[in-house]
Amino acid sequence: MMWLAVFSRQQSHVRLCHSIRLLSTFRYEDMQITLTDKPARKPDNDKLKFGANISDHMLEIDWTEQHGWGCPQIKPVEPLRIHPAAKVLHYATELFEGMKAYRCVDNKIRLFRPMENLNRMATTAQRTALPEFDKIELLKCLKKLISIDQEWVPYSQRCSLYIRPTFIGTEPTLGVSYSNQAKLFVIIGPVGPYFPTGMKPVSLLADPAYVRAWPGGCGMFKMGSNYAPTIKIQEIAVKKYNCQQVLWLFGDDHQMTEVGTMNLFVYWINESGEKELITPPLDSGLILPGITRKSLLELSRQWNEFKVSEQVITMARFVKALNEGRVQEVFGAGTACIVCPVNRILYKGQELNIPASDDPSNLTQRFYKEVNDIHFYRKASSWMEAVEENEEEPLRTYETQ
Amino acid sequence: MMWLAVFSRQQSHVRLCHSIRLLSTFRYEDMQITLTDKPARKPDNDKLKFGANISDHMLEIDWTEQHGWGCPQIKPVEPLRIHPAAKVLHYATELFEGMKAYRCVDNKIRLFRPMENLNRMATTAQRTALPEFDKIELLKCLKKLISIDQEWVPYSQRCSLYIRPTFIGTEPTLGVSYSNQAKLFVIIGPVGPYFPTGMKPVSLLADPAYVRAWPGGCGMFKMGSNYAPTIKIQEIAVKKYNCQQVLWLFGDDHQMTEVGTMNLFVYWINESGEKELITPPLDSGLILPGITRKSLLELSRQWNEFKVSEQVITMARFVKALNEGRVQEVFGAGTACIVCPVNRILYKGQELNIPASDDPSNLTQRFYKEVNDIHFYRKASSWMEAVEENEEEPLRTYETQ
Repeated sequence: MMWLAVFSRQQSHVRLCHSIRLLSTFRYEDMQITLTDKPARKPDNDKLKFGANISDHMLEIDWTEQHGWGCPQIKPVEPLRIHPAAKVLHYATELFEGMKAYRCVDNKIRLFRPMENLNRMATTAQRTALPEFDKIELLKCLKKLISIDQEWVPYSQRCSLYIRPTFIGTEPTLGVSYSNQAKLFVIIGPVGPYFPTGMKPVSLLADPAYVRAWPGGCGMFKMGSNYAPTIKIQEIAVKKYNCQQVLWLFGDDHQMTEVGTMNLFVYWINESGEKELITPPLDSGLILPGITRKSLLELSRQWNEFKVSEQVITMARFVKALNEGRVQEVFGAGTACIVCPVNRILYKGQELNIPASDDPSNLTQRFYKEVNDIHFYRKASSWMEAVEENEEEPLRTYETQ
Repeated sequence: MMWLAVFSRQQSHVRLCHSIRLLSTFRYEDMQITLTDKPARKPDNDKLKFGANISDHMLEIDWTEQHGWGCPQIKPVEPLRIHPAAKVLHYATELFEGMKAYRCVDNKIRLFRPMENLNRMATTAQRTALPEFDKIELLKCLKKLISIDQEWVPYSQRCSLYIRPTFIGTEPTLGVSYSNQAKLFVIIGPVGPYFPTGMKPVSLLADPAYVRAWPGGCGMFKMGSNYAPTIKIQEIAVKKYNCQQVLWLFGDDHQMTEVGTMNLFVYWINESGEKELITPPLDSGLILPGITRKSLLELSRQWNEFKVSEQVITMARFVKALNEGRVQEVFGAGTACIVCPVNRILYKGQELNIPASDDPSNLTQRFYKEVNDIHFYRKASSWMEAVEENEEEPLRTYETQ
């Protein structure tokens, strides 16, 4: 399907509203903006805690089955008014995305591969039975929000702006069914470095008693319902086992699937004696198709210095490699940290120790530096997309799937 | 653990608040009540749609990690003010219960086995990393709410009052972790008969590609996160396969687990030639421990007229019995319908037709009549608990697990 963004900005509101219904999307051109008269004080970059600081404004767009999408609104951040019978509060009719913008070395603000997130968001919306929308229009609205709150993008190459698109079902009736009302909103806020004092490896609890995702389920979608069941297990890992995160296993053969809320990577010498970067494949439906995961695979395939595989890794295979001294690095990969080294796995009561040196020649460190260089545009990359180009460039034609 | 409800109603607010912190619960005695000055018109009993009509008042109780539980409040139903970063909107930190009150033949309003629901709610809260509370205090608050909105309990032995306790995590920060703020609320509303024109059997889509719950997951808890993934599949069953509900299968042997949002029962002649009522067992962790499920098992064990088993039923075993003419009835069981007969299962492209006569001697019909007689107190039963006894009886000592 191809949306053509051919409407001129001068078109009348009435005609635009007509178009909205036809295309089943909201339109950037319809945006209504209300600015706060009480801007908050920006927090110190040194004191940022992930997800605790929200900027002054948010984007909010409502949909009803009857009237379709309303006008996008940028307005001061305030509590949402949600009916106590709304489906989001009962049946988890909700999904989100996590993405980031960076204040680059040239002081321009850029997003990292935003269409990857918005494509995933659209796929997840479909699985959640939430309505379709035009991703390009959402990207434009989102850039406008960042542009308005641009002073919230930290003046720092250690910090960034976290962006949280969220989509919830708001129909106020209790039947377990698709929601005939929905709200898409985006909040943003500055976040600090995942590792404030240098990269610190984490320890993992690998207990097959706790399963995150399964074939025929929704593990590959970014639905809210994937997260609630993990919170108690994360608490058990920390409090009962003194591990920092959970290594999610699956199946009788204890496949390693994900790490906390991150994708899993192992860098090792494989059974054929080859250097190999390996991560679990997406086709099982168990694995979230992470944007960082995809980027690391693409980078290392470009480098072409070692084998890169998407393959099942069972604990037996991993432990054998570890015992034979073939495991070089294990790390999680995600938007929050880029990469997060692992130095210990607690499995069946046994401590598995994994090499995790601070050597900058390590693959983990190399990925971190490379992706950071891209984020802050120390290395120019087509993965970065400027926030302000909306206003400078003519409307473009995008193809969406 | 045993809570003693020994506080006199005259006790000072200060001392009660002290008790609240010690016991980590809210207290009925602290209740604050604000009545609406705009009561809504009650809907016609003939036009009730499940979950679409909410009464005038709701119960709301807030918790913070810092201050513990606040005072229970009964107030007019109004939108909740929820921060856009609240965990419930992102990570599905939410759970609910579904229970009913009936206007009985003596015009007294009674609840059906309410402590069963509140015990399950407490278990689910623990799994969802939401705070503990005293279930007896919640029951008292809930009775008070029903008492205030008692005119919303239909004057009809075909209708009832649906009660929806809900518990959500409201901390406004984006980390995937337990919520340091929470809100417990209860909304209620009249519901009509599940089958307005006599019991109508339903058809089921049984496709092993869609899995509701799995070992190591949360299928046995009433978490919101179990429901979002099912909504699209229910839509597929209806629109693509012309089936009304989904029969959830599990495993390579295609175990029959649940029907839509109901527990599954099969009444058949088993392989040994015995009449048997069979339902999948709870120990797998895949099955929601339904109150109606439990009640039907208890009733039929009291009757002692046929074998009653909690056992795995695979599709192969079921199809064999069907082909041999041994399957007599298949039905779902839940709060909404009590029982719901099944007359057709679409499995691997094959239509399986199941006997579902309207004969009142059928087990499905017998269960329906028996439980209905109990609900409306045409048959006195200790399963029913009067709503108004709070005010009439001295405070009692309950044991909670």
